[in-house]
Amino acid sequence: MTAATRREHDLLGDRDVPADAYWGVHTLRATENFPITGTPISAHPHLIDALAAVKEAAALANGELGLLEPAKAAAIVAACREIRGGKLHDQFVVDVIQGGAGTSTNMNANEVVANRALELLGHPKGAYAHLHPNEDVNLGQSTNDVYPTAVRVATASAVHGLLDAMAVLQEAFARKAVEFRDVLKMGRTQLQDAVPMTLGQEFSAFAVMIDEDRSRLAEAVELIHEINLGATAIGTGLNAPAGYAETARRHLAGITGLPLVTAANLVEATQDCGAFVQMSGVLKRIAVKLSKTCNDLRLLSSGPRAGLGEINLPPVQAGSSIMPGKVNPVIPEVVNQVAFEVIGNDIAVTMAAEAGQLQLNAFEPVILHSLAESLAHLRAACLTLAERCVAGITANTEVLRAAVENSIGLVTALNPHIGYTAATEIAKEALATGRGVAELVLERNLLPAEKLAALLRPEALAGPRAGIA
Amino acid sequence: MTAATRREHDLLGDRDVPADAYWGVHTLRATENFPITGTPISAHPHLIDALAAVKEAAALANGELGLLEPAKAAAIVAACREIRGGKLHDQFVVDVIQGGAGTSTNMNANEVVANRALELLGHPKGAYAHLHPNEDVNLGQSTNDVYPTAVRVATASAVHGLLDAMAVLQEAFARKAVEFRDVLKMGRTQLQDAVPMTLGQEFSAFAVMIDEDRSRLAEAVELIHEINLGATAIGTGLNAPAGYAETARRHLAGITGLPLVTAANLVEATQDCGAFVQMSGVLKRIAVKLSKTCNDLRLLSSGPRAGLGEINLPPVQAGSSIMPGKVNPVIPEVVNQVAFEVIGNDIAVTMAAEAGQLQLNAFEPVILHSLAESLAHLRAACLTLAERCVAGITANTEVLRAAVENSIGLVTALNPHIGYTAATEIAKEALATGRGVAELVLERNLLPAEKLAALLRPEALAGPRAGIA
Amino acid sequence: MTAATRREHDLLGDRDVPADAYWGVHTLRATENFPITGTPISAHPHLIDALAAVKEAAALANGELGLLEPAKAAAIVAACREIRGGKLHDQFVVDVIQGGAGTSTNMNANEVVANRALELLGHPKGAYAHLHPNEDVNLGQSTNDVYPTAVRVATASAVHGLLDAMAVLQEAFARKAVEFRDVLKMGRTQLQDAVPMTLGQEFSAFAVMIDEDRSRLAEAVELIHEINLGATAIGTGLNAPAGYAETARRHLAGITGLPLVTAANLVEATQDCGAFVQMSGVLKRIAVKLSKTCNDLRLLSSGPRAGLGEINLPPVQAGSSIMPGKVNPVIPEVVNQVAFEVIGNDIAVTMAAEAGQLQLNAFEPVILHSLAESLAHLRAACLTLAERCVAGITANTEVLRAAVENSIGLVTALNPHIGYTAATEIAKEALATGRGVAELVLERNLLPAEKLAALLRPEALAGPRAGIA
Amino acid sequence: MTAATRREHDLLGDRDVPADAYWGVHTLRATENFPITGTPISAHPHLIDALAAVKEAAALANGELGLLEPAKAAAIVAACREIRGGKLHDQFVVDVIQGGAGTSTNMNANEVVANRALELLGHPKGAYAHLHPNEDVNLGQSTNDVYPTAVRVATASAVHGLLDAMAVLQEAFARKAVEFRDVLKMGRTQLQDAVPMTLGQEFSAFAVMIDEDRSRLAEAVELIHEINLGATAIGTGLNAPAGYAETARRHLAGITGLPLVTAANLVEATQDCGAFVQMSGVLKRIAVKLSKTCNDLRLLSSGPRAGLGEINLPPVQAGSSIMPGKVNPVIPEVVNQVAFEVIGNDIAVTMAAEAGQLQLNAFEPVILHSLAESLAHLRAACLTLAERCVAGITANTEVLRAAVENSIGLVTALNPHIGYTAATEIAKEALATGRGVAELVLERNLLPAEKLAALLRPEALAGPRAGIA
Repeated sequence: MTAATRREHDLLGDRDVPADAYWGVHTLRATENFPITGTPISAHPHLIDALAAVKEAAALANGELGLLEPAKAAAIVAACREIRGGKLHDQFVVDVIQGGAGTSTNMNANEVVANRALELLGHPKGAYAHLHPNEDVNLGQSTNDVYPTAVRVATASAVHGLLDAMAVLQEAFARKAVEFRDVLKMGRTQLQDAVPMTLGQEFSAFAVMIDEDRSRLAEAVELIHEINLGATAIGTGLNAPAGYAETARRHLAGITGLPLVTAANLVEATQDCGAFVQMSGVLKRIAVKLSKTCNDLRLLSSGPRAGLGEINLPPVQAGSSIMPGKVNPVIPEVVNQVAFEVIGNDIAVTMAAEAGQLQLNAFEPVILHSLAESLAHLRAACLTLAERCVAGITANTEVLRAAVENSIGLVTALNPHIGYTAATEIAKEALATGRGVAELVLERNLLPAEKLAALLRPEALAGPRAGIA
Repeated sequence: MTAATRREHDLLGDRDVPADAYWGVHTLRATENFPITGTPISAHPHLIDALAAVKEAAALANGELGLLEPAKAAAIVAACREIRGGKLHDQFVVDVIQGGAGTSTNMNANEVVANRALELLGHPKGAYAHLHPNEDVNLGQSTNDVYPTAVRVATASAVHGLLDAMAVLQEAFARKAVEFRDVLKMGRTQLQDAVPMTLGQEFSAFAVMIDEDRSRLAEAVELIHEINLGATAIGTGLNAPAGYAETARRHLAGITGLPLVTAANLVEATQDCGAFVQMSGVLKRIAVKLSKTCNDLRLLSSGPRAGLGEINLPPVQAGSSIMPGKVNPVIPEVVNQVAFEVIGNDIAVTMAAEAGQLQLNAFEPVILHSLAESLAHLRAACLTLAERCVAGITANTEVLRAAVENSIGLVTALNPHIGYTAATEIAKEALATGRGVAELVLERNLLPAEKLAALLRPEALAGPRAGIA
Repeated sequence: MTAATRREHDLLGDRDVPADAYWGVHTLRATENFPITGTPISAHPHLIDALAAVKEAAALANGELGLLEPAKAAAIVAACREIRGGKLHDQFVVDVIQGGAGTSTNMNANEVVANRALELLGHPKGAYAHLHPNEDVNLGQSTNDVYPTAVRVATASAVHGLLDAMAVLQEAFARKAVEFRDVLKMGRTQLQDAVPMTLGQEFSAFAVMIDEDRSRLAEAVELIHEINLGATAIGTGLNAPAGYAETARRHLAGITGLPLVTAANLVEATQDCGAFVQMSGVLKRIAVKLSKTCNDLRLLSSGPRAGLGEINLPPVQAGSSIMPGKVNPVIPEVVNQVAFEVIGNDIAVTMAAEAGQLQLNAFEPVILHSLAESLAHLRAACLTLAERCVAGITANTEVLRAAVENSIGLVTALNPHIGYTAATEIAKEALATGRGVAELVLERNLLPAEKLAALLRPEALAGPRAGIA
Repeated sequence: MTAATRREHDLLGDRDVPADAYWGVHTLRATENFPITGTPISAHPHLIDALAAVKEAAALANGELGLLEPAKAAAIVAACREIRGGKLHDQFVVDVIQGGAGTSTNMNANEVVANRALELLGHPKGAYAHLHPNEDVNLGQSTNDVYPTAVRVATASAVHGLLDAMAVLQEAFARKAVEFRDVLKMGRTQLQDAVPMTLGQEFSAFAVMIDEDRSRLAEAVELIHEINLGATAIGTGLNAPAGYAETARRHLAGITGLPLVTAANLVEATQDCGAFVQMSGVLKRIAVKLSKTCNDLRLLSSGPRAGLGEINLPPVQAGSSIMPGKVNPVIPEVVNQVAFEVIGNDIAVTMAAEAGQLQLNAFEPVILHSLAESLAHLRAACLTLAERCVAGITANTEVLRAAVENSIGLVTALNPHIGYTAATEIAKEALATGRGVAELVLERNLLPAEKLAALLRPEALAGPRAGIA
């Protein structure tokens, strides 16, 4: 062994690892075995923090239960707090897509924590006789309870970030709903002119959709708060002493501030990925709604002269390398693409969850990776959409009002007064001749002029629910 | 017009419809326009019942609000009750996949109800001057509130059927969990031998998974109970008088027995398919878990001689047209396939939901069709699995116990006593030599014989949570 | 046993089947085991014909190789030809979604063919001592070669139907491309006004897309022509005599008219679903393009007054139960929905293919069902779109031309003459002031009037490729 | 402007960019607008090389056609060659998920090339009066032809990398097929014992599956070779002079070594994503087969004592943080996860392709990103599987042979001699009693001993196709 390496040993034999690495032989083999994406797990900082939190909670529980010497426990706790403070993240080097049900991630954490704790205790890295990655840091644990627990803590943390971003977006739409509360426009169904409404109602609907999705997300995260720490290998709790699960859970809840509960049936909880499928399904729902909303924004702002031209999105960059002056709806477009990615990720999560076998799902790493990506990208998309697009939207009020006044759809309001059949004849003639509904009704003496004017007052047509909900 | 037809009129002109048909010209055109699947909407009886319930509720509301003559209202109500009683379902002939946001389904309902009501009033079919499909049956309504409301009522009804079937399956697994509570076996992670457990624990996990999914389904159906009746065309309530939405909702809740509520923001509710996406996501979750469970059942029953051979599924049919005596796990296999179909349907629902534009989603027919199929097939799959498979499963107790006693995985229990490193050496030697863990530990004097025997008692290893949870 | 039933026997014991049923005990059990969808396999007539073709080919091969008495072979062949002629389809009663890798479908076929052959030989149904479903009709075969072969023959037949329908649609678009070759319009990118083109170019692109998809489909069906008949149980050809595979293939090719080839590696071919995944992927591609095309048709025909209003789709039914005179793009909408269904079906096929294990994929029934649905529905969608929509599309030529002349996008053509930077300034001012590009260029003396007029001649702008490609 | 920045100008006004940045104002705005994934486009090096190749080809064409001064053209070419040589990749900083149909990527390339070319010409960065990103580097081009062309070139390059990796994996399986050609084993269908085969046949099937997928991939890349360079904004070729498309294509083919062809209909080619959908579908097919293969490897190597235990995967890392000596199938597991990701990516590609509107698909960035990820990860997965798993697989020959000799499935071979019905009785009794097939046949005097022995010789049973195909 040269000065630059230290020798470590595992089931398969000896290997030299860089002397300054906090990770050890298990991590080394994992990096060699999984050269898949080039993206290390440190790309998901919530996961690293969550691993440290779990290791800290386990050490505290082991100390409290008298299973681990106080000095060792203290060193492990101190190391974990450094990691949660942002240090040593670059030592989490195994690939985000990895075989082994998260064992490599857990061992990476065990090794980094052990070596940092050894340093804090005054020992060199690798002096595992003093404090061992498996026998001390992983004491009373298995990858099969540590990893799912860490994935849940990480996911819950990321969900809270998304909830906040969605609130920002909801507020942006809600503000526009107020601003546009008196802007009359034609509503459309199936892309065909329907009946009048206000632009405020349209934007209010966008806000409400996000609000409902936030509620679903808040529900789904409750399931994520259910952990299996203490289950060890398959949920029977082998090697975890009585009280371990509850003690560790209590510490982990304290550390993370999350309302964690231990699953009632640990055998089931250890193999089950239902909460991840549910979470992914809710993220897909959010993606579907965001994409629909962005489709609408792009459609309403189409033009400037040969489109609907109802609203203007704020220009944020030149739109074309060939067409001068062209400005494109690039912010909604990027949100659409995030939505497509999230919907794709849901399929990856679905397949990984379905592929679980017997007492474990070996494919949780790709589940974590997919969820973490979806959560982070949706968060960024919501903030970008709110700040760089929605906040700056303006309405072409004159264009919108003219379309209402010129509309055939106004005839719908006459149904109760002249009947669907007569109204249909008016609509057909208006369409064929280009004439207005009102003049045709008057010409046929179907209604007196004053009553007609009252019925066709657009403000009335937009309904008792005009303005924002 | 011959004796066998009657002439009807619509926006596009005159058409002859069969004299004995309860449906009319709008339905006729729809059947010509959408010759897609050959499956009529009557294939989804919950939908037909729901349409009749909505039309009945609307007629009651219109009567109560003085908008519809009592005689007409009574005839409409009577016609709807006949339909809900199972009559005239064969008159609902438009294709399950249809353009038009459900307009053809709504018009099919309007026409059938109108013509049956006309008969009840003593008029011939088609005498719309006396009672009109649009002006009376559809009074105060639009496809855009009727159809989503009916889809929700139909879906809620089907969900209750699935919840019941899942309870049957859960109970079947739970009974086996009790039956197998003392059957020791090796647990497996990543298909590799892990540590001991009981077969009862394994089946208990199956039961718990279904129970959790039932909870999710019960949550998801709450969102389905939110309706937009009274929204009319785009949610502004145009042409629906004050009080209409609440009155119609009250009647519909009474008729269906469902805890229906009117959405707070009807513009949003009219365009939003979030509840369907959520429901479909939960059905996908159920599919994922059922498929995983069936994969396990097939794996555990593999053999009879060259497989795991842990359990026996009851034979329900000869398995092979060439291999005599072969019996296959056909019931789990059919459940797997239903799961794949449901997961595929979720993508159809997702894409249809994302494709909504502005004030309406025109693609709800394929959403209804996909959800209805998934719900019905999952229900059938759960019942078949419970009754034709799970109820008859038996355990190969001797095989299971021998595997535990022969296992290397027992060494895990020695970690706290001899350390992970020494235990690893024992495991390696056991694997290389084919010898038993206990004899190697004794040979190396790592533990006294009595202590070893106590530690390796399989019943202890299966954990304090042995038996069912 | 009453007069109305006959007793049959299988591995599990005795059962009474209806005396007039051509199917027997295996089919009976299958109908009891798989009460899933209620849809019998006869819903896929291509499959029934294909099963009969395979049984006929096998009987001819068995006769030719001296394995089956000529009289038996002749009776089987005659029975199969009746089925291919459309008879007895109602006897194919097992559910489209079934466990058992197609064994129930194969046994249903064996039983129906045997009983009809028995009748032709002058024996009563069920007199299997004279001609046996397994020992004669299934002679030299296994479900594991019969079923995949029949699925392939059925799929190939359905593909040819789709290819024809796509040709009809392509031709409809191509005709419009010629009709609209001189209709100038603004092209759009990202829904924003871009540069001029002709409506003929736009419709020509629709035609070309379908043509390319037809080529892909024709490629994909080549893979489907590769069969594994002769593989028997797992591809080793056990119990199939030398020459059997080739003789049976030759007869099957002759019967079906398809260029069938026997797979080079029968073990691989028996377990592999690659050709189905490929076919499903191509159907998904077709769905994606059709959906995009229909989205465009709906967008271009939006209005009539508050939309793009560039083209008119022929009205095919009244569009609204509340809005008089409204006509909706129901034909494109139904095609969109078929597309969503096909994309969902692709996921079902994908999951089923991935779930194959070892020497067989047990989930081919759901693969067949999904492919058959997608093929049939796409065929119907293409024909409906061609005949009820595209053929009747008209252009609003004046509206289109005015948009070009009023467009800021014209400035793009000036880039090579005044530079991107100056052109950008012109575009900005045009947008801000509502003025025209030409007048601004002249006002700034950037180009002489005649040169400007020549550059901005819309016909020139639509490019040397104007008209159809 | 401080020493550390330079001021640039665009449609929206002035901005300062870092003085040492090769990218400019358009790139700056894009990085602010799209803070989505944190992953820059340089993460896809094939794309950067492809962009440089396109810009080089365009400059050569512009030079050849006399549109660009020779000195400028030469400088642009030189800059592009540096980039293709691996330099300046860190200057490609816009996010992999971005709005704008690739405009930001194209502008990033235009700016980097322009600034490097300026340096080569002796000018400072930003001195665009001497050589302009739009007017010179992008001359005759639009994002809408540059970006799809670059995506195709990048994809084609990545495909070739995957084809090579698949060949390595195919060869690894083929070598094992030869090594295991005489290893008898039980074949299985539906996880139930079927009939004998050789392990060589099993591995040969794995090899053949990969070979077939390579053929499909080679077909799919042909479609990718069709480019739309010269189409400019919407395919009409506006601002591209006569001969430009062909000249640029010729240069690009020369630079890249790819057999590129110009699409016949450039309007269609500019909006169409069919080739990407097809490519993604083929990648999904590869993923499905790889996942199925890895499922089989994991199943066959299950154990070591309570599983099938037919083969041994080479241990590559310790398998458990709690279970000593446990070794898991981590390499197949990571491949499974890549497969799930690829299948998910296919949905993202599908949705993005379907979302294209009118003359352009604005969502190609997420298509490129998804395809690039899938291609790179599949390549890594194939190599890892070949080198770290398949190459080291060994067979448990004795276990395998014993299972054959003990098998009930042998009875299938007796069908032609004792009939399916009698064989079924033998099988039933063998299963019930645990006795062997041969002794039961002899006991019942169904066949003479010598004939029986000959029929049941396992080597014969594995079929004439024993060994590798």
